[in-house]
Amino acid sequence: MRILTDPAEVAAEARARRARGQRVGFVPTMGFLHAGHCSLMDLCRPRCDWLVVSIYVNPLQFGPTEDLERYPRDPEGDARQCEEHGVDAIFMPPRLYDPDHSTTVRVAELQDGLCGAARPGHFDGVTTVVARLFGLVQPEVAVFGEKDYQQLAVIRRMVRDLAMPVEVLGGPLVRDADGLALSSRNTYLSPAERARALSLHRALHRMRAVAAETDDVDVILTEGRALLDVDRLDYLEVRDGDDLRPLGRLRPSARAFVAGLVGRTRLIDNLGLAASP
Amino acid sequence: MRILTDPAEVAAEARARRARGQRVGFVPTMGFLHAGHCSLMDLCRPRCDWLVVSIYVNPLQFGPTEDLERYPRDPEGDARQCEEHGVDAIFMPPRLYDPDHSTTVRVAELQDGLCGAARPGHFDGVTTVVARLFGLVQPEVAVFGEKDYQQLAVIRRMVRDLAMPVEVLGGPLVRDADGLALSSRNTYLSPAERARALSLHRALHRMRAVAAETDDVDVILTEGRALLDVDRLDYLEVRDGDDLRPLGRLRPSARAFVAGLVGRTRLIDNLGLAASP
Repeated sequence: MRILTDPAEVAAEARARRARGQRVGFVPTMGFLHAGHCSLMDLCRPRCDWLVVSIYVNPLQFGPTEDLERYPRDPEGDARQCEEHGVDAIFMPPRLYDPDHSTTVRVAELQDGLCGAARPGHFDGVTTVVARLFGLVQPEVAVFGEKDYQQLAVIRRMVRDLAMPVEVLGGPLVRDADGLALSSRNTYLSPAERARALSLHRALHRMRAVAAETDDVDVILTEGRALLDVDRLDYLEVRDGDDLRPLGRLRPSARAFVAGLVGRTRLIDNLGLAASP
Repeated sequence: MRILTDPAEVAAEARARRARGQRVGFVPTMGFLHAGHCSLMDLCRPRCDWLVVSIYVNPLQFGPTEDLERYPRDPEGDARQCEEHGVDAIFMPPRLYDPDHSTTVRVAELQDGLCGAARPGHFDGVTTVVARLFGLVQPEVAVFGEKDYQQLAVIRRMVRDLAMPVEVLGGPLVRDADGLALSSRNTYLSPAERARALSLHRALHRMRAVAAETDDVDVILTEGRALLDVDRLDYLEVRDGDDLRPLGRLRPSARAFVAGLVGRTRLIDNLGLAASP
């Protein structure tokens, strides 16, 4: 497994691989990898010849009051997990943008509400970094986790609108044994906070149970909200899983989304409300 | 020569060509082709195996009061000229964007002043359409005219920032025998307007002559302005030809830029102020 740090180097290597007819696969991450990231590598591995994982804490997608500076890092643990999951190259640039970088890629729709409301500019940072990473790595297939469900929808829209020649795959959300959605930010949680963080997942499951009885989204939301134990609720919503429009009545594609602060840690989770897992 | 109208078809064809190791060359245009466009094809032809010219009047880059509806069109003349200049495929989609297209590519710098001031949103439309066209055509080399000098600078910046694997070449501005910079919009001009339109080019040449005598940009501008015979002057400026920053003193990379209305027709021109042609 190679560690590449120079954007020009990864671009040249990707170009050479493609010229030899190899399929490039790509999993972009911000590092501090966990089983959720590894499941994305496992999804990508059989679909490509050269599997690249990027590790870059992208400042463009952090707001001024967010946790850019304290975002957890573990380069050695990351390398070990990548190695174990058959990654061919880690791309971890100390600097990704030119000092006078001035281009933004913006998806105007799909940002309304959910994390777009609580984190203004966040998705512009995501689409911009993903566009640049796609330019460098030139993947034929790229995998993103459904944990960041809105992010996946925004990226799919960018790829479609800009006709990027990349197949985007979503990987299912991975949970800990107690049900907490895996997130690098879980490391911030104290034991007491972690216990309260489980209320997100419990609320979503309660909503799915209620959804088997009624198609009235207001009823479903009320039942879910009653279980939440967070310090600030950013949103609890039911939206269409395909186009993210808010729903008043249940549909087969309905999905529940939640985000909130437990202590200082912002957590998100989501769950399809159809009966099947 | 093939005429392709379906975005999916041009993408599939470009992909197949690249898989066979062919180099794709690309000249994006809005049609109503003239010798300026043909010079771009000639520049691209020896640099690629498959030369694509797109013809698409991109609504995203027109303001609400601009000439989108009356922009001149001549598909048969365009096809003849493309054929004569060795083009392999014309891509002329009746519709380029999905109905719910929602992605914008924006270069924040390089838009201040010049045409960016007179045409708000114009360059966002340009970078967005070029990004989408690059995604479809996947060129290794693309050629843009220096007539639209600021546009070329903005596109180069986008390509660098998003690490697009495309070599961007600028083709020199082409003039009619009387000195008027070739433009599809010249067709709007009455004979009397055309005579006055020559004042743009005369002003720029006067400025270059004055620049041989002084490095004071104010003096150079005053001399140029005195020759202009336009109905509305959008700008007459001296800027650095590399990064487009305004100059107070002459430098070897200095370039003069002018834009204005003659009758209802907006014309632009530019000229390097160094002594060499």
